[in-house]
Amino acid sequence: MQTKTLRIGVLTGGGDCPGLNAAIRAVSKSLMINCCAEIIGIQDGFLGLIERRVKPLNYEDCSGILSQGGTILGTHNSASPFNYKGVDVSDKVLDYYQSLELDGLVVIGGDGTLSIAYEMSKLGMNIVGIPKTIDNDLMGTDRTFGFDTAISIVTDALDRLRTTGQSHKRVMILETMGRYAGWIALHAGIAGGADVILIPEFDYDIDEVAKACQSRMGDQHYSIVVIAEGAKPIGGQLTIRETKDGGGDPIRLGGVANVLKLQLEQKIDAEIRATTLGYIQRGGSPTAFDRVFATSLGCYAASLVANKQFGKVVVLQDGQLCSTSLKEVAHKSRIVTNEDSELASALSMGICFGNPDLATKLHSLNK
Amino acid sequence: MQTKTLRIGVLTGGGDCPGLNAAIRAVSKSLMINCCAEIIGIQDGFLGLIERRVKPLNYEDCSGILSQGGTILGTHNSASPFNYKGVDVSDKVLDYYQSLELDGLVVIGGDGTLSIAYEMSKLGMNIVGIPKTIDNDLMGTDRTFGFDTAISIVTDALDRLRTTGQSHKRVMILETMGRYAGWIALHAGIAGGADVILIPEFDYDIDEVAKACQSRMGDQHYSIVVIAEGAKPIGGQLTIRETKDGGGDPIRLGGVANVLKLQLEQKIDAEIRATTLGYIQRGGSPTAFDRVFATSLGCYAASLVANKQFGKVVVLQDGQLCSTSLKEVAHKSRIVTNEDSELASALSMGICFGNPDLATKLHSLNK
Amino acid sequence: MQTKTLRIGVLTGGGDCPGLNAAIRAVSKSLMINCCAEIIGIQDGFLGLIERRVKPLNYEDCSGILSQGGTILGTHNSASPFNYKGVDVSDKVLDYYQSLELDGLVVIGGDGTLSIAYEMSKLGMNIVGIPKTIDNDLMGTDRTFGFDTAISIVTDALDRLRTTGQSHKRVMILETMGRYAGWIALHAGIAGGADVILIPEFDYDIDEVAKACQSRMGDQHYSIVVIAEGAKPIGGQLTIRETKDGGGDPIRLGGVANVLKLQLEQKIDAEIRATTLGYIQRGGSPTAFDRVFATSLGCYAASLVANKQFGKVVVLQDGQLCSTSLKEVAHKSRIVTNEDSELASALSMGICFGNPDLATKLHSLNK
Amino acid sequence: MQTKTLRIGVLTGGGDCPGLNAAIRAVSKSLMINCCAEIIGIQDGFLGLIERRVKPLNYEDCSGILSQGGTILGTHNSASPFNYKGVDVSDKVLDYYQSLELDGLVVIGGDGTLSIAYEMSKLGMNIVGIPKTIDNDLMGTDRTFGFDTAISIVTDALDRLRTTGQSHKRVMILETMGRYAGWIALHAGIAGGADVILIPEFDYDIDEVAKACQSRMGDQHYSIVVIAEGAKPIGGQLTIRETKDGGGDPIRLGGVANVLKLQLEQKIDAEIRATTLGYIQRGGSPTAFDRVFATSLGCYAASLVANKQFGKVVVLQDGQLCSTSLKEVAHKSRIVTNEDSELASALSMGICFGNPDLATKLHSLNK
Repeated sequence: MQTKTLRIGVLTGGGDCPGLNAAIRAVSKSLMINCCAEIIGIQDGFLGLIERRVKPLNYEDCSGILSQGGTILGTHNSASPFNYKGVDVSDKVLDYYQSLELDGLVVIGGDGTLSIAYEMSKLGMNIVGIPKTIDNDLMGTDRTFGFDTAISIVTDALDRLRTTGQSHKRVMILETMGRYAGWIALHAGIAGGADVILIPEFDYDIDEVAKACQSRMGDQHYSIVVIAEGAKPIGGQLTIRETKDGGGDPIRLGGVANVLKLQLEQKIDAEIRATTLGYIQRGGSPTAFDRVFATSLGCYAASLVANKQFGKVVVLQDGQLCSTSLKEVAHKSRIVTNEDSELASALSMGICFGNPDLATKLHSLNK
Repeated sequence: MQTKTLRIGVLTGGGDCPGLNAAIRAVSKSLMINCCAEIIGIQDGFLGLIERRVKPLNYEDCSGILSQGGTILGTHNSASPFNYKGVDVSDKVLDYYQSLELDGLVVIGGDGTLSIAYEMSKLGMNIVGIPKTIDNDLMGTDRTFGFDTAISIVTDALDRLRTTGQSHKRVMILETMGRYAGWIALHAGIAGGADVILIPEFDYDIDEVAKACQSRMGDQHYSIVVIAEGAKPIGGQLTIRETKDGGGDPIRLGGVANVLKLQLEQKIDAEIRATTLGYIQRGGSPTAFDRVFATSLGCYAASLVANKQFGKVVVLQDGQLCSTSLKEVAHKSRIVTNEDSELASALSMGICFGNPDLATKLHSLNK
Repeated sequence: MQTKTLRIGVLTGGGDCPGLNAAIRAVSKSLMINCCAEIIGIQDGFLGLIERRVKPLNYEDCSGILSQGGTILGTHNSASPFNYKGVDVSDKVLDYYQSLELDGLVVIGGDGTLSIAYEMSKLGMNIVGIPKTIDNDLMGTDRTFGFDTAISIVTDALDRLRTTGQSHKRVMILETMGRYAGWIALHAGIAGGADVILIPEFDYDIDEVAKACQSRMGDQHYSIVVIAEGAKPIGGQLTIRETKDGGGDPIRLGGVANVLKLQLEQKIDAEIRATTLGYIQRGGSPTAFDRVFATSLGCYAASLVANKQFGKVVVLQDGQLCSTSLKEVAHKSRIVTNEDSELASALSMGICFGNPDLATKLHSLNK
Repeated sequence: MQTKTLRIGVLTGGGDCPGLNAAIRAVSKSLMINCCAEIIGIQDGFLGLIERRVKPLNYEDCSGILSQGGTILGTHNSASPFNYKGVDVSDKVLDYYQSLELDGLVVIGGDGTLSIAYEMSKLGMNIVGIPKTIDNDLMGTDRTFGFDTAISIVTDALDRLRTTGQSHKRVMILETMGRYAGWIALHAGIAGGADVILIPEFDYDIDEVAKACQSRMGDQHYSIVVIAEGAKPIGGQLTIRETKDGGGDPIRLGGVANVLKLQLEQKIDAEIRATTLGYIQRGGSPTAFDRVFATSLGCYAASLVANKQFGKVVVLQDGQLCSTSLKEVAHKSRIVTNEDSELASALSMGICFGNPDLATKLHSLNK
């Protein structure tokens, strides 16, 4: 089907994410086995194309990495050919891409990385994208790999916080990742049996949150609150600033969990504890689900490459693997809406979102 | 929406499955919160209706069970109103159902249990079904809860077997559940990086399997083989029988992993070890995915009950929660076919299925 | 051996800890089975004796709790009969204890709780103590239950942070519990392959830490730093304070991980990320090790009670279960010293403690 | 302390075991860092010395392996210089050892491997031993690494089987490793809340086992039975044999769990299910405890090497790391006795061992 000379680059960009190695392995092995392709690993995301750091990947390089977190190629959060230390070096990157004699480039990344990929594809790069993000907020796909692992980590944390909350009769607050989208907080909150879930999509009324916790303090004597890092009270975030002793400019520290703790302490008479999971949400071995999903996306991407269907992204739509154009995914993001099925479930379970627009009600069956 | 007198029964039938308690909790809490319903727990599946063992479930009974495996209601594999110790007692069961003054009954079960539910619904029971099975082989739904937990357990086992296989240069065989459908073996095999996956849907040629293992013994020096309990060689299962010392009738023992081990030992020169996971695949705390999924199914079922849409089952179709008729699900099962996306991925990764009809090839993009 | 009327109270005090339920179960079942004892559960630590909240525990109450985190009796961090809202109510507590007609009281707690137990025993209570703390810092015992679970949680977190550190070439800082003793940071740091471990026992020189990280940035390109919450730089902690916008008194926020991050950012040119695990270190299901250990301590405590050996604590000394007097344990704590075997191992592995007194050297064999 | 020319071989023998890589890493890094040693990896246990397969290990080879199961050096169960395919090649092995110009050899293994090491040391090899075995049955040490990981895996399996047992009211039997010693079954049985524990050290009376299960069927309606693979009924094992259809010599299949199931089915009226964990007990990532323990043993072994204290084994005695002579460990094994503390705990909890000599009783305090 393919000549022996097919040369394909593979690149991982943006924040690391469980399943990246599974995707690299799937794309590479699938192309090696079916197309005798040579695989060129681009190091540290687009930075590798800018600073010209690549390494060939052979079959052994792609073995035994399925269960490993992170990415063997390295990644970078912000490197862009359009703004490298303030300079647009996209033309140089294109030159380098051509000098590598690549037939195509598989870009595994989130919103930012795929947006850059889209812009580079318009300059003539043959790109196939694979969506990844623990935040699950990519437009055009029902789901991204890394998300399942993230919610399993947060859920495990909630199972642990619950026993402490019960034993001490406390309100336990857990801050999760999710600056613009509340998917992690919503799903992990449901899986962890949270009483309150606060997400960026719906500003919270502190009095509603306090009421929900208070009602339980008289009853089950403890509450579990999950708050996404981007959630904010109605009227805007009450920021907390800190200064090093001896002054100096204030630096933002802590996070919304600490803010919420301070707010709640003024409203209810209960011991409150806040925990911020931070980076452990994005590392480590992927769940079985994410391994299968990332592998399937990678194999599907290999088919797109073999069929020279460039400018595309592999996505999951209506439960089916398929492809859409990079344009559909670039420069967009997907957030939780009133239509969301898990939100409907959470509401029918009586979970409090601290928002008057989201009253407890049964699933609507309008589907 | 509902009067205070709504009385709903809940029943779990068939083999236990991670997520049953999450579903019980979701149905019950959702109906209590939104409809002030009384919930009646039927004990041990349909056996509870036959032997008249029920208990009211209050809000506390449904608290703190989300993360627990098994079912607080108990379950039974084979009890049927149509054949209770050889007698059809369906009329007595119907009498009892009416004497309980139930407005509806939520039945959480697999193929067998939902088939009985369908038959009882034809006799006049107001039933809403929720599909569960770790085998993922129910017709009419893309996925069942319990399956994700099962593959995560099998995948964890494969991660462990791999290190032993590598250290000793062995062929490690793992037998999974799956008598008629190979979903667990297929997904866990992909997630665990299996070299060979043998499933009931495609009989295997022992020489193909031997060849696949042999080729790796010269290379990476070890192989991982996943075999579903229902997989069989072309030409039919080579059974293994055993007798107690001193004779007596032979009794079936061991399983397909041991059979395959004996077959392979005659074909290749390698140390081979077989492991059968057995019952640990269906127990324990559900994964975050299964908790969310079972909760959503339960909440959706509650809506169907509240809306008196009986004779229905909650299902996932094209990635969407919706309902179908019990008839569509009853007396059927869903197996792995050539159209399956994960099978396509496995093939493009070069995983051996021991079957000439399943050659390594790229994903087709006919979607 | 005992008459049917043996009445024993059980109390859990201080911070919750994985294994508390295993210990409650072991004490209670062992005394019920062997001495037909009645068990009286004291609720919320010494607060239950102060506010007179107790409940009888039967055999069923003690079943199925072995694997559960937290404590079914509830606990309280600070309640003391000698200072209840500023008042000494120890005499009233003694009256209540006598009115309960208890033959003995098993107190499961850490330093603070066992110190109170010692003082109450001097007033005439028949007390047997069981040491618990995730911090492993109790005097008189080689180990406490809860510690193994805590280090396993921190180690899991380090495994996750490692993949992110590698992928992004970052310095990853993890803050663990341990205000006065560094046991958790030391053991988890070794188990998690940390490059730098900072503990309260040895103040750190920020330049040494920076050097250790810098040297790796040129080499493996990432570093793992574990810091106990009580660790401080030579010269004393650089505190970080914050004020709510619009002023008001400053409130302590964040922690030593954030402080260290700020310090390091001024010394080395690398991306640095800080994570604080917080409360998830003390919750959830205990490890197999802690379940066995807590069970053995509980069974041994039951023997002490049955033999009326009061004023004692069950301890592990030289690898053997035995008992010591409450006096030996009360008002003391155990910290990491130069003699410690794991510290010696860490030093011989070249792990940096940021302290000039702790140079890399081989294990001494003076034992 | 050492010249640059110190050359040390490292070898892992016997069954693989979680923590082997942690020990290899600790020995190697400690000797590299403190003695500038060259490390020579011997491949596949003593087979590598027989077939002359070695590879130098550098610092990078020893990085990132701490959390990996198995052994990067490979291992072999039975290869012995004294019996290689029936021939004594110990003299050739000694020649090869000398030709490698090794100053010493660190042998990481269990009973069999350390016994060979002892015999080779008598022929003039400079050997330091490190004990490993998941079975914890080595003489001269309180504990071996790998054991904690094994019991945590078995305990996790018991947690899963429990939910199935409860839901179906079944007797769940789990067969663990332990041919001659019952340590895994004893510790995991306690940690998993087993009702019956059967180990090789104490033959079981099937009627006692049946009685213990029967009594619970009336009560909690289910039982958990843990049986070590070497456990046998009083009067000797009722073996089960099988023949391939068409005859041929009978081959042992299944195991003691299946035997016990058949025995119990004739004694009690209950559903009984048997599971055999097999090889998953010895693979995968080591627990935090085993990582710390294996690291400490490795670091201590490095000190012995550096101090030319050969013919020794690193052991844990009375809770302290120290060394003993290879002779003390070779050709011996350690089994569970009446003196054992965990056995005493299990008895005081009323756990049934099916043996009349082991009646339920309190811990004796004769220590």
